[in-house]
Amino acid sequence: MITRNDIKFLKSLSLKKYRYKHSQFLVEGLRNVHEAIRSDSKPIKIWTTEIFLDKHAELKNQILDFPYEIIDESLFSEILNTKNPQHIMALVPLNNFIVDYNLIKGNIVVLDGISDPGNMGTLLRTIAWYGIDQVVCSKECVDIYNPKVVRAGMGAHFQIQSIFYSDLIVLFENLNKKKYFTLAATMKGSPHSTIEIKRSWALILGNEANGISVDLQKFIDLSISIPSKSSMESLNVAIAGSIILDRLIH
Amino acid sequence: MITRNDIKFLKSLSLKKYRYKHSQFLVEGLRNVHEAIRSDSKPIKIWTTEIFLDKHAELKNQILDFPYEIIDESLFSEILNTKNPQHIMALVPLNNFIVDYNLIKGNIVVLDGISDPGNMGTLLRTIAWYGIDQVVCSKECVDIYNPKVVRAGMGAHFQIQSIFYSDLIVLFENLNKKKYFTLAATMKGSPHSTIEIKRSWALILGNEANGISVDLQKFIDLSISIPSKSSMESLNVAIAGSIILDRLIH
Repeated sequence: MITRNDIKFLKSLSLKKYRYKHSQFLVEGLRNVHEAIRSDSKPIKIWTTEIFLDKHAELKNQILDFPYEIIDESLFSEILNTKNPQHIMALVPLNNFIVDYNLIKGNIVVLDGISDPGNMGTLLRTIAWYGIDQVVCSKECVDIYNPKVVRAGMGAHFQIQSIFYSDLIVLFENLNKKKYFTLAATMKGSPHSTIEIKRSWALILGNEANGISVDLQKFIDLSISIPSKSSMESLNVAIAGSIILDRLIH
Repeated sequence: MITRNDIKFLKSLSLKKYRYKHSQFLVEGLRNVHEAIRSDSKPIKIWTTEIFLDKHAELKNQILDFPYEIIDESLFSEILNTKNPQHIMALVPLNNFIVDYNLIKGNIVVLDGISDPGNMGTLLRTIAWYGIDQVVCSKECVDIYNPKVVRAGMGAHFQIQSIFYSDLIVLFENLNKKKYFTLAATMKGSPHSTIEIKRSWALILGNEANGISVDLQKFIDLSISIPSKSSMESLNVAIAGSIILDRLIH
């Protein structure tokens, strides 16, 4: 039975400090839990309600393989601190990816100070959609296991093979040795629809307000922009990044 | 001087009922206020702080043409109900667009039940970026003047010539007479990178959870999808819509 101590523990995972201390995070909602079940990172425990389980018959067989518990629906909004939570959540091992530049291969996305959790989650969702296996984040980025990032990611955390935090200068020094082609989404670059890259590439997306760090400019082989048909100042970074990724992939 | 009654009034505009009753809404942040100033919909009043004004010298001349007042910075978080507001906001006339199907011309975007304010705002921002002048929303969509929509829109509300709410069946009956080509973003359609349309088009984007309404299926000339390279279930609707728009425009 779920105890007050369990509840206290699960609530504490809304804070980064406790997620990394325990190497665990919470995922909520059917899609996210479904992806957690399908992935290698097996859920430690699943909580749901009788009604939710009855409504999602296919779930019943899936969760039988894992420890699960039926709890009162009021606990979901308490633990997840959201107004209208879905009545399913899972505790999952947090993958504290080890930085190993030697293992980097294939195309990668580099996130330089993405600070909004919704943007981060949506970007991970798109990156997973396009089958990109590696994401490197600067230390200024929001934590990828932040509950809002996980919610917007819709299972991306279980699809992308590795997402790690790194000093980006060290990263690009390593990518240079591997002859990567470095693209950057900027306000004044070549039109995105004309890009054609024959080598492995790294796409840098910068901070919502300040763009790409000055320190990284020297590593950029090509700046790319999405031409506007209006006098709007910019696109949202998750939108711009996704549009450029789409052109690189398709 | 700003009174408690003024504050009460401004706070009330977080609710749709009061926005439409008074035909006014609040915009916050530099970019949004800047767009409001540049647009035809002139701000009724602007509030900022001494410090903010000093930091943004260019703003000083711009706001001189409008009634403005320097207020205490603590009032911004109180009125806007956000943790870290920028210290500038403007009260702006709400454009309660009249539905006139005869005036529709050129390419349009149709939003069928977009419920998340962040998605709605981000979509409007992209739509404005690509210079699309008309957006039609179903009555199930979130209000376009919801504060979170306005925040994510980043000035789009002042760029798009008309955004109105309509029964979408009546809309498509009218578009049919005008020989519009109707595209829909769906999970199982033709690959988005192969589209080429020679007529004026209407692109329908559906609800986050349920997609496009069953009633509208008969109006769809072509379903479009963005092929995935993974087993992710879907893309975020603002992302998918933006990627498809990009292919239609560029």
